[in-house]
Amino acid sequence: MNARRQTVALAHPPSILSFANIGGKFEGQGPLSPYFDEICPDSFFGEKTWEKAESVMQKSVLRRALERADLRPEDLDRVLAGDLLNQCIGSSFGLRDFGVPFYGLYGACSTMGEGLGLAAQLIDGGFARRCAAVTSSHFCTAERQYRMPVPYGSQRSPTAQWTATAAGCTILTDDGPGPYVTHVTCGRIVDWGITDSANMGAAMAPAAYDTLSAFFRETGMGPEDFDLILTGDLGELGHAVVRDFFRRDGVELGPRFQDCGLLLYDRERQDMHAGGSGCGCSASVLCGYVLRGMEEGRWRTVLFAPTGALLSPVSAFQGESIPGICHAVRLSAAR
Amino acid sequence: MNARRQTVALAHPPSILSFANIGGKFEGQGPLSPYFDEICPDSFFGEKTWEKAESVMQKSVLRRALERADLRPEDLDRVLAGDLLNQCIGSSFGLRDFGVPFYGLYGACSTMGEGLGLAAQLIDGGFARRCAAVTSSHFCTAERQYRMPVPYGSQRSPTAQWTATAAGCTILTDDGPGPYVTHVTCGRIVDWGITDSANMGAAMAPAAYDTLSAFFRETGMGPEDFDLILTGDLGELGHAVVRDFFRRDGVELGPRFQDCGLLLYDRERQDMHAGGSGCGCSASVLCGYVLRGMEEGRWRTVLFAPTGALLSPVSAFQGESIPGICHAVRLSAAR
Repeated sequence: MNARRQTVALAHPPSILSFANIGGKFEGQGPLSPYFDEICPDSFFGEKTWEKAESVMQKSVLRRALERADLRPEDLDRVLAGDLLNQCIGSSFGLRDFGVPFYGLYGACSTMGEGLGLAAQLIDGGFARRCAAVTSSHFCTAERQYRMPVPYGSQRSPTAQWTATAAGCTILTDDGPGPYVTHVTCGRIVDWGITDSANMGAAMAPAAYDTLSAFFRETGMGPEDFDLILTGDLGELGHAVVRDFFRRDGVELGPRFQDCGLLLYDRERQDMHAGGSGCGCSASVLCGYVLRGMEEGRWRTVLFAPTGALLSPVSAFQGESIPGICHAVRLSAAR
Repeated sequence: MNARRQTVALAHPPSILSFANIGGKFEGQGPLSPYFDEICPDSFFGEKTWEKAESVMQKSVLRRALERADLRPEDLDRVLAGDLLNQCIGSSFGLRDFGVPFYGLYGACSTMGEGLGLAAQLIDGGFARRCAAVTSSHFCTAERQYRMPVPYGSQRSPTAQWTATAAGCTILTDDGPGPYVTHVTCGRIVDWGITDSANMGAAMAPAAYDTLSAFFRETGMGPEDFDLILTGDLGELGHAVVRDFFRRDGVELGPRFQDCGLLLYDRERQDMHAGGSGCGCSASVLCGYVLRGMEEGRWRTVLFAPTGALLSPVSAFQGESIPGICHAVRLSAAR
């Protein structure tokens, strides 16, 4: 038995002080539309390029989360951010004007989980009082970087997912009324050999299973201790795979087991194939629907476990399989 | 006056337990050749592609650093890693087989500073006992991603730098004989409007100045308190710019102020233009020349402050300037 633990229980769980999200046209047409702070029907967000639009989204959610907490950028000790764009330019250009000490992350679509987890540890360790975690994705920047130019209109396979045009920001602080980040589980890179990059849900499912299993094993908690267990963007197939893995272990995840990518769109009406994806998918669902629901008392304990696919177009062209990772945090109304 | 501090002084400074580096052909022909654990004259490192070669370098330095400390991968609590490749595939493919809980970073060429800083805080905060920080760069992967296909043989401007083919790994632990990481300074994104991506030293110099200034101001230490102050890859021009900025403040950095990119190659004989660059440049110089020098008592206090340029080819094509960042750690033989 290995003594290493992936999960840390925070001694003084940081409190969520503020949050904000933003979405694009399709996100505004979905069932979570009322839970967005802002919906922008212009895919350029007033900019000349989609990449600049993505930066604007990050800027917008950080600014709004600061305003909501009546904070200035100088009041923030650290911001942790990343995105899917090559060299994470959504974050570096979106956040450069704030002047907040910055840790750049790359966790693909798990970035909000990674950022929240690291921010919570920095605060609990006494290294910072207030930290923001920010991330974004944009359908058009992701399509042209990972797949095909958008105007090409290529056909999508049934397991393909739809990259959300969205961003989210959470600000954590050392003291407050909650909800709290009580536990952080750092994921491992898991690669079971899936090579179909139009089936990322299947590629990431083993990582979600690995991290959630580690969390349950190490904390002694079970699914029944949660009102909501939320993956990020496994989509229909990947989500079912995780449910099935646990069933084989004799663990029933039940209806509390949800996926941000399945919540974000109305798949009957919007035809997003296997579901939503992208860093902004889980981040915008967390920083709207989920955290507002916790404020309103709808859920008291949430396990947020977004996954990321750590591939690139180059690795796929070179015949590599798709490594996945999943970073989890436990959110609780009570300390 | 703002109460926010970029610098944290660690209560129980983590100790460097092990380190390893690897370099390519040109690095093996330079003055630091004796300080490399391994020099591989084959730019493919036995693989079929340069990207896979870069992953092999990361694998190799982590394996060697573990061996040197007589550790197995299971003995490591966390690995923090990143690189310059799109979606950081050098790290995800290089480290996937170890099964160590993984935090992916994107700090461009500042990655070893960012990784060491975060690892030290995770250990000092009690969240982990042993953490590795790993990064790499490869001349050929960087050239074809950022500039021109290598066989094209395009002419280089005098301010251009040479991306090192190299990798480095440091393993930190909660207790040991040192050297210790005593202070960590988290950088801010600094962008003074430089748009020439063949002059990254000038683009990154303001970030180095910003972070070093914050360190001196917040700790009350001065350059005279250090045996060595080391930037990562500012090259000849950028390094001179930082020295000049401090001179205007009445601070003389003196001969203790060095740059990994100027140390790695013999610029008379090797013609690397303005100097070396890349995540692997500062990482391999730290994890060889510098840490061995500290072991041998040549230096007792080192301020390691690598910088990163947070641009991408896309941001450059879209007319954006080049944001820089610098993450610093203070290394000391004594706690």
